[in-house]
Amino acid sequence: MMLLSILQATAAVLDVEANLRTIDEAANRAARAGAGLLLTPELFPVGYAPLRLRDGLDPATLPAIRESLAGIASRNGIGLVYSLPADADAASGEVDRSGGPCWHISASLVDAGGAELLRYAKVHLFGDEERQAFDAASEPPAVVDFLGIRTSLLICYDIEFPEAARAAAARGAELLLVPTALSAGYEAVPQVLVRARALESQLNVAYANHCGAEGSYTFGGGSVVAGPDGRLLAEAGNAAELLFATVGPEAVRAARDDVPYLRERRPGLYREWEAGLADGTGRPSERQD
Amino acid sequence: MMLLSILQATAAVLDVEANLRTIDEAANRAARAGAGLLLTPELFPVGYAPLRLRDGLDPATLPAIRESLAGIASRNGIGLVYSLPADADAASGEVDRSGGPCWHISASLVDAGGAELLRYAKVHLFGDEERQAFDAASEPPAVVDFLGIRTSLLICYDIEFPEAARAAAARGAELLLVPTALSAGYEAVPQVLVRARALESQLNVAYANHCGAEGSYTFGGGSVVAGPDGRLLAEAGNAAELLFATVGPEAVRAARDDVPYLRERRPGLYREWEAGLADGTGRPSERQD
Repeated sequence: MMLLSILQATAAVLDVEANLRTIDEAANRAARAGAGLLLTPELFPVGYAPLRLRDGLDPATLPAIRESLAGIASRNGIGLVYSLPADADAASGEVDRSGGPCWHISASLVDAGGAELLRYAKVHLFGDEERQAFDAASEPPAVVDFLGIRTSLLICYDIEFPEAARAAAARGAELLLVPTALSAGYEAVPQVLVRARALESQLNVAYANHCGAEGSYTFGGGSVVAGPDGRLLAEAGNAAELLFATVGPEAVRAARDDVPYLRERRPGLYREWEAGLADGTGRPSERQD
Repeated sequence: MMLLSILQATAAVLDVEANLRTIDEAANRAARAGAGLLLTPELFPVGYAPLRLRDGLDPATLPAIRESLAGIASRNGIGLVYSLPADADAASGEVDRSGGPCWHISASLVDAGGAELLRYAKVHLFGDEERQAFDAASEPPAVVDFLGIRTSLLICYDIEFPEAARAAAARGAELLLVPTALSAGYEAVPQVLVRARALESQLNVAYANHCGAEGSYTFGGGSVVAGPDGRLLAEAGNAAELLFATVGPEAVRAARDDVPYLRERRPGLYREWEAGLADGTGRPSERQD
């Protein structure tokens, strides 16, 4: 069992120092409460403002920001999930329209010693501004063991697609950590979709949102932690808050024993159905499962 | 726009006459209220009791039951969705373990003239009893135009899998009609998963359950109609009820314009992720989308 903490707060666009201070204070409070991990919202260290980041954030400053965040984790002795812009891995050979390296929205999980265990880049970009400022990534969510829980990352719009959470669950995830930047007015996302992702793949999902006004956006807060039975373990209002919930693999195993969704899904058949669509018949060409 | 009616009631196991009377009375009330369609629960005409049906229901009686149901539709001038056991289509060549034709749980949509427009067979069987009594089917949900709305069918456990509703949405469905037999205690299915299916694929989902005790089962009622924004348009309690909701393609189009989930999903990438899993690397072999 792990006590998980979720920061819901307002970031200051391009005021990295102020945002790191907010994260540091939250990490300190969370660690003192006994939490093993602090989850923070999408792009929180730099503020959620895609075009202003593209124009005003010098990518050369990112390694130092990452180092500061690792320092916050190790100084407070707590795991940390943070989200930042990131160049695509040079080894991937991904280039953007101008021939430079792809510029992704990433999220990293670092352990209480500050070591990066996992980095994920957002696969589903939301809206024109994100698509102008960033490139969509293509790697599936990976899974690592973190304090005894198989842990994976998605970012914001990704979790609205059942396919993305399924990909993490198929790789063994028991806990999905999701930094987000969800505008006010879309409360059905945490209240319906996040709960459904948790229930249909029987894992814990933590979803950390901004609140208040940030640049041209108004965020609704409403951060949640959903358990593998679809119930909310914790739920924030629309103001700044440090949220706590206890998660672990035991409830995951109990839910998967009760109704074995992951075992009883039929991925071979779904692939066949998609292929039937692609060839225009809308029907499978041969049976398999 | 169409007024949709949903029958939530208790069936009498193997008392076909009593169950057809319940459906007939509901069809009459619904038609007088102006409904274009009556949706009834899973296996309602024969009662939900898989093993007792396998042992006690003579398949030779099914054509006459279907004829009676077509008569209920045409006599009352209303479309009808009913669910019955069905032999696999002879043309499919599907045989069960004993070499006989596969025995599916099916659902049919008949129009107000009694003509069958659509027949679907359940792909995800739930629990040991269903798997002992029936064979899982493999055809994707097809879609037909019904009173101006692109309409498709799933059955019970199917809707708990996002992949099944996606297959219908990918084929153009705007309305998913789902006969079900959901035991009491699983209220998160209509309250979380059905709403999520409607929201994530932006279509209307109507989910008609049994209520009360039937054979060895106790059903929780809680039938719902969810709109393409994930909100409940109608919701039953745990007793017998005829539920009404207005559905149409307009709200579907508005939701899909607001957040284009179906256009922004990346099926090519998901297939690649699955293939990466299948070959054990957990990573895509080449990029495509």
